[in-house]
Amino acid sequence: MDGFIFRNPVKIIFKEGAVEHLKEEIKPYNRILLVYGGGSIKKTGIYDKVMKGLEGKSVTELSGIIPNPETTKVYEGIELCRKNDIDFILAVGGGSVIDSAKAIAAGAKLDGDFWDELFMKKNDITDAIPLGSVLTMVGTGSEMNSGGVITNPDVKIKCSYGNPLLYPVFSLLDPTFTYTVPKIQMVSGIVDMFSHIMEVYFSLPDDDNISDNLSESLMAAVIRNARIAIKNQEDYGARSNLMWIASLAINGLLALGKGEDWQSHTLEHTLSAYYHIPHGLGLAIVHPHYLKYVYKGHGDKFKRFLKRVFDVDPSEMNEDEAAELAISKIQDLFKELGAPTKLHEMDIDESRLEEMAMNTDEFKVDYSDLKHEDILKIYKSAL
Amino acid sequence: MDGFIFRNPVKIIFKEGAVEHLKEEIKPYNRILLVYGGGSIKKTGIYDKVMKGLEGKSVTELSGIIPNPETTKVYEGIELCRKNDIDFILAVGGGSVIDSAKAIAAGAKLDGDFWDELFMKKNDITDAIPLGSVLTMVGTGSEMNSGGVITNPDVKIKCSYGNPLLYPVFSLLDPTFTYTVPKIQMVSGIVDMFSHIMEVYFSLPDDDNISDNLSESLMAAVIRNARIAIKNQEDYGARSNLMWIASLAINGLLALGKGEDWQSHTLEHTLSAYYHIPHGLGLAIVHPHYLKYVYKGHGDKFKRFLKRVFDVDPSEMNEDEAAELAISKIQDLFKELGAPTKLHEMDIDESRLEEMAMNTDEFKVDYSDLKHEDILKIYKSAL
Repeated sequence: MDGFIFRNPVKIIFKEGAVEHLKEEIKPYNRILLVYGGGSIKKTGIYDKVMKGLEGKSVTELSGIIPNPETTKVYEGIELCRKNDIDFILAVGGGSVIDSAKAIAAGAKLDGDFWDELFMKKNDITDAIPLGSVLTMVGTGSEMNSGGVITNPDVKIKCSYGNPLLYPVFSLLDPTFTYTVPKIQMVSGIVDMFSHIMEVYFSLPDDDNISDNLSESLMAAVIRNARIAIKNQEDYGARSNLMWIASLAINGLLALGKGEDWQSHTLEHTLSAYYHIPHGLGLAIVHPHYLKYVYKGHGDKFKRFLKRVFDVDPSEMNEDEAAELAISKIQDLFKELGAPTKLHEMDIDESRLEEMAMNTDEFKVDYSDLKHEDILKIYKSAL
Repeated sequence: MDGFIFRNPVKIIFKEGAVEHLKEEIKPYNRILLVYGGGSIKKTGIYDKVMKGLEGKSVTELSGIIPNPETTKVYEGIELCRKNDIDFILAVGGGSVIDSAKAIAAGAKLDGDFWDELFMKKNDITDAIPLGSVLTMVGTGSEMNSGGVITNPDVKIKCSYGNPLLYPVFSLLDPTFTYTVPKIQMVSGIVDMFSHIMEVYFSLPDDDNISDNLSESLMAAVIRNARIAIKNQEDYGARSNLMWIASLAINGLLALGKGEDWQSHTLEHTLSAYYHIPHGLGLAIVHPHYLKYVYKGHGDKFKRFLKRVFDVDPSEMNEDEAAELAISKIQDLFKELGAPTKLHEMDIDESRLEEMAMNTDEFKVDYSDLKHEDILKIYKSAL
């Protein structure tokens, strides 16, 4: 284990009926900004449960957060916080809603423009409105970390910001809330969590270490549970296991004492900034093609991955064989779950790939040193 | 995953040179009670490094904490806290020192007697002196949880107390500090962490769940790394992996959404309360014998354990064969590392077993329903 500093203070309440804890957890706060998406929480009854927990509070609503959430709604939220002297932001939804809540929480206490100061210049914040979440789907893990991703549609840039002040004070996780999530969104969330783990796992050091060992057990668990959860949307065991994996996948734990890659996420962010495809489906396409492009020199890691994640004995394989088999196993899994593995399946053709490659940051990380021309090659390999 | 509530706020600084962070982390506090053991930290130079971090603070020392720490020193610490208006307790040592610091932190703010109120009646506390730790050995995991174990020599009872107010504010973990830990103490610590994981793993539900999956990966990692660490006391990779496993083993993570057993620990506590043997060595003796006594009806769990922890294919085995092979694998591992697996190896004979069994709480947990006569049978099977 290389050196690390770790502190994750989020209080997780994980159970069927978790939302009933809202009343107690939100006690110290009075003027609440309630952030949510397109209104599905009204159909599922989650909205009513939340409002019951907020009885007696002054509640301001900000609805209409879209997948791949945009700056516009963040500005709107910041305005509402200032106007109503909001002292707590409650996000009810998935990653898009929680990420928007985090950007609002930081932006409302900032003198300058949140996009320029935080997402572009990556300046530190010194204050933020406290926030909490009621999670309604799985995948992004935003409920247990301090980062978020926002898209600026004017410049077609989707990027991230994080600060310890943006850890949710609490997150309420009810696995049965995922029963009503549309299948393709569930698939997207499953690919997202698997990709989060791979981003960290496939980075240096390749030596056996505890963070990678935890990652291996969680990736194997994603595979077992995803197969069940996709077939039966009300299988509590599989759904609850996936919900908890998603939180663990990106709450800091798996990255302790090692490098992190996130290059596949960077490649995908451009994809969904241009084509508005679900984040997880974009990852299902680009992540395997990215790994194909960068695996050289890391054969031992792919062998360990085959053995511990897919239970395949790699002892007779050379580096190329092991890496190629591992990557095809990943693609087969994504296909089996119902995700695309090629751009054309999402009606994306070659026409804008060059512009997209130029609009994606060049990146030097543990496994790769990607220039714009490399990024273009990866996009093209995924056509 | 069954329901759970989780929040672990400990800040971990994990690296060679972690103690250099002490100055920064202890900034908010002024009157420090420094708690440590028999003085080995003076020989190793750790004491000097700590005192450098405490420059400018008013420091009161409480030394002489022994393994299986006793009530006497806790009373002494409580007295010192009150007399010197201590606002922070710094534990420098292993689990015995940190556990003592926790009992002092709680006891100093209590009107009544700490042993009666907390360890016997298990009353909640509403206040405690904040504490932190500089870890000098591995095993107990006390550096990242809110519990502690103290022995009352007058009544020969060793038992535990925990409260969220007793989480260390910070713990500084330097894997190189373990280089000077005597081999038998390192063995004891390794068995302790393996036992902590088994206590939780071998409890209900037996269904595949994420907490057990993490446990499996950590138990397999203990085996790989212990073999290296015991042979080479300065192997940074193995020592650092073990140090981090020990913290994860009992920081709450592995017990989320499932039962916990702790019956082997209860059996061991009586053993070391009577014979003052190192806790981990006592566990190496009693834990496998306990499992032999209770495994019936849990064959599938032992099969999964064999497959995922020891990489043995159990598909052709029946329940008895799988459980017996698994338990003998555990014993072989402990023996290989240099731990005892029978009481006579620690010069413990039959003479006091009956008294010990009567002095150990009867216990009904997931895997067992132990009366005094069962406890006696387990002790006798370990002779």
